[in-house]
Amino acid sequence: MNRIHQELDTLARFSSSEFPSVTRVLYTQEDLEARDYFISLCEEIGLKVRVDAIGNTYARWEGIAPELAAVGTGSHIDAIPLSGQYDGTVGVFGGLEAIRYLKSIDYKPKRSIELVLFTAEEPTRFAIGCLGSRMMSGQLTPEQALKLKDKEGGFFNDIREAAGFKGDLNEVKLSEDYYHAFVELHIEQGPRLEKENLDIGIVDKIAAPSTLIVKLIGEGGHAGAVLMPIRKDAGVAGAEIMMAVERIAKDSESEDTVATTGIFDILPRAVNSIPKEAYLEIDLRDTNIETRDKALADLKHEIAEICEKRHIKYSIELLNCDPPATCDENLVHTAEKAAKGLGYSTKVMTSHAYHDSLFMAQLFPTTMIFIPSKDGVSHRPDEYSSPEEIDKGIKTLALTLKEVASS
Amino acid sequence: MNRIHQELDTLARFSSSEFPSVTRVLYTQEDLEARDYFISLCEEIGLKVRVDAIGNTYARWEGIAPELAAVGTGSHIDAIPLSGQYDGTVGVFGGLEAIRYLKSIDYKPKRSIELVLFTAEEPTRFAIGCLGSRMMSGQLTPEQALKLKDKEGGFFNDIREAAGFKGDLNEVKLSEDYYHAFVELHIEQGPRLEKENLDIGIVDKIAAPSTLIVKLIGEGGHAGAVLMPIRKDAGVAGAEIMMAVERIAKDSESEDTVATTGIFDILPRAVNSIPKEAYLEIDLRDTNIETRDKALADLKHEIAEICEKRHIKYSIELLNCDPPATCDENLVHTAEKAAKGLGYSTKVMTSHAYHDSLFMAQLFPTTMIFIPSKDGVSHRPDEYSSPEEIDKGIKTLALTLKEVASS
Repeated sequence: MNRIHQELDTLARFSSSEFPSVTRVLYTQEDLEARDYFISLCEEIGLKVRVDAIGNTYARWEGIAPELAAVGTGSHIDAIPLSGQYDGTVGVFGGLEAIRYLKSIDYKPKRSIELVLFTAEEPTRFAIGCLGSRMMSGQLTPEQALKLKDKEGGFFNDIREAAGFKGDLNEVKLSEDYYHAFVELHIEQGPRLEKENLDIGIVDKIAAPSTLIVKLIGEGGHAGAVLMPIRKDAGVAGAEIMMAVERIAKDSESEDTVATTGIFDILPRAVNSIPKEAYLEIDLRDTNIETRDKALADLKHEIAEICEKRHIKYSIELLNCDPPATCDENLVHTAEKAAKGLGYSTKVMTSHAYHDSLFMAQLFPTTMIFIPSKDGVSHRPDEYSSPEEIDKGIKTLALTLKEVASS
Repeated sequence: MNRIHQELDTLARFSSSEFPSVTRVLYTQEDLEARDYFISLCEEIGLKVRVDAIGNTYARWEGIAPELAAVGTGSHIDAIPLSGQYDGTVGVFGGLEAIRYLKSIDYKPKRSIELVLFTAEEPTRFAIGCLGSRMMSGQLTPEQALKLKDKEGGFFNDIREAAGFKGDLNEVKLSEDYYHAFVELHIEQGPRLEKENLDIGIVDKIAAPSTLIVKLIGEGGHAGAVLMPIRKDAGVAGAEIMMAVERIAKDSESEDTVATTGIFDILPRAVNSIPKEAYLEIDLRDTNIETRDKALADLKHEIAEICEKRHIKYSIELLNCDPPATCDENLVHTAEKAAKGLGYSTKVMTSHAYHDSLFMAQLFPTTMIFIPSKDGVSHRPDEYSSPEEIDKGIKTLALTLKEVASS
């Protein structure tokens, strides 16, 4: 097993679920240990490490002209419950391996190259995705961050401080001249590269995600004694909303519209008790902001109709609703050229998944390098990209960074 | 506060949730303490207490002719999570109060009168309702009971033994001549008595319940990257089944058909992950066995169709499927006469809820005495019957027992 695969394997053990599944939630013991492991590897090759107030970790390889804006690369290492070992991690440890490769060929960058480990791309803990990059881009302000709570009711600020991150939240935001360019290496998390038998995808657009929290309150009661016509079952109302979520995405004019109810809880959760309350978290995204916003409006309208018809009280909270990102044309071209120069087959493509690059793209010329995902699966223990596929991604990243850092 | 209300209030404190909500699960510390409290009150008035191998508790007031079959009364004291303080308990402590009343008027019963505390009417722990009375009637055999497991995977036998119940399971079943008659006092758990402004309901039929467990396995994946046409979302399949459960009950020819999905869990339960698995517990009941069985068959058929269409693997387990009970005509008449004799307004009615009497009725002439439930609610902390309503139920029960025990 070569170095990066050994490192990814080691990293997968920092998990609260059993290998090969990975569960690594922000600011848990597993997350902190995994961060320490990453920092130790960065320091081993002489990178200068800086950790900001919320744990975003910067490992800098200083260039010949350190006064110039650096070139950034990186991704995340947090993992949703029972997921796999490649999502995010390939961009962090692959970024490290790309720097090692450039050092091994005695390259000296003009611009500094900086590897970033973003704090919590996944929304697991605070129900908001890209927490780290969102704050770096200024899209989440310190005031908003202070209001975040986890499922147990703990405040973001208390939890980050308990995890050892105590700096000033106002210093997390980056200025627009901080990076000259940003390139993220990532697994595709979809089936397109594999299906077309391609080595490398270069991302020109990142889908626009939005997250809704829907809370329903109906009337509980005994499952035997309350007859059907007088029920106000919050569970069935939630089920009807789930069906609407699916139908609206399927009916969209854009084939890129996807919508998922990933969380649906009912209370009191007893077989002989009519559900009194329901809680749904819905993810709706698109590469096209018009069709995404239309789907969102349709969904809100349907939720209102369903609840009105069923006499259910409801609230809809739009947790986030980000614009899609357009990648930098020149940077896309540079990455494509690097891959082709290595003899790899490529495709310029859209990212349907959500990434930290979405927020980096708001500040800096940005693109992403995708490698194939076996059977298109991700967020599952059987998520897989082969050593050869990962190596091709690392080489493409290395030569892209080299090209940009030399300019 | 009079005695019975003080006792119900004390009883409500044996709970693992905060007053006024009650949570009292079979064989937990709270359940055992509540049983001890009940037994101490029975012994205080000279009843002879016997506890069987699974904790069914019999408190006997010996009659002048102890060789005759006794007259039984009683109910349960277990409570589903976050429920109220009157379901079941009114029949147990009200039964005790009825005996106290008969003693206070110097009545000497010919037949013995026996008060029963049934072990676990609620299906909370082992997912099967009327565990105690089901075994007493022989509808649950010791062999079947030994296979029962709770959510944590603990076996029934280990758990009952750890709780101190170690007798022979074969001795739980009652013979058909054990009781001359059985009468259960209970809250209505529905709105009918209150709506018609009546004091007492006499039950002539008890609805036929059935419980289904449905497990679904689809395909997980990233909520952004997997496009709609290729999804196998087990969550939406579950939602479609929930909708079918409701529709089938609503469309039934019998207005007494009720169906509820009280439990619906999805995995992995993350907003950005397509549900890979779903788990549903469905309660379907009716006073008419033909329409109940038709609804059950329709539901199974629809589940198969939904899963086939969506390429979802599924299993359906029919956890229980009991016949409805018809109460004893003479006994119904006796109870009605007792209530009317006390000047109370009455109604002969169906019980849509499930009770231990369902199983007593398989062996003995049986009926139930209902008192009004405020707003028809039950299985909720705001479940309520007034002291006056409870007292009327107790008086009716006492005079019914007196009449039958004298015969």
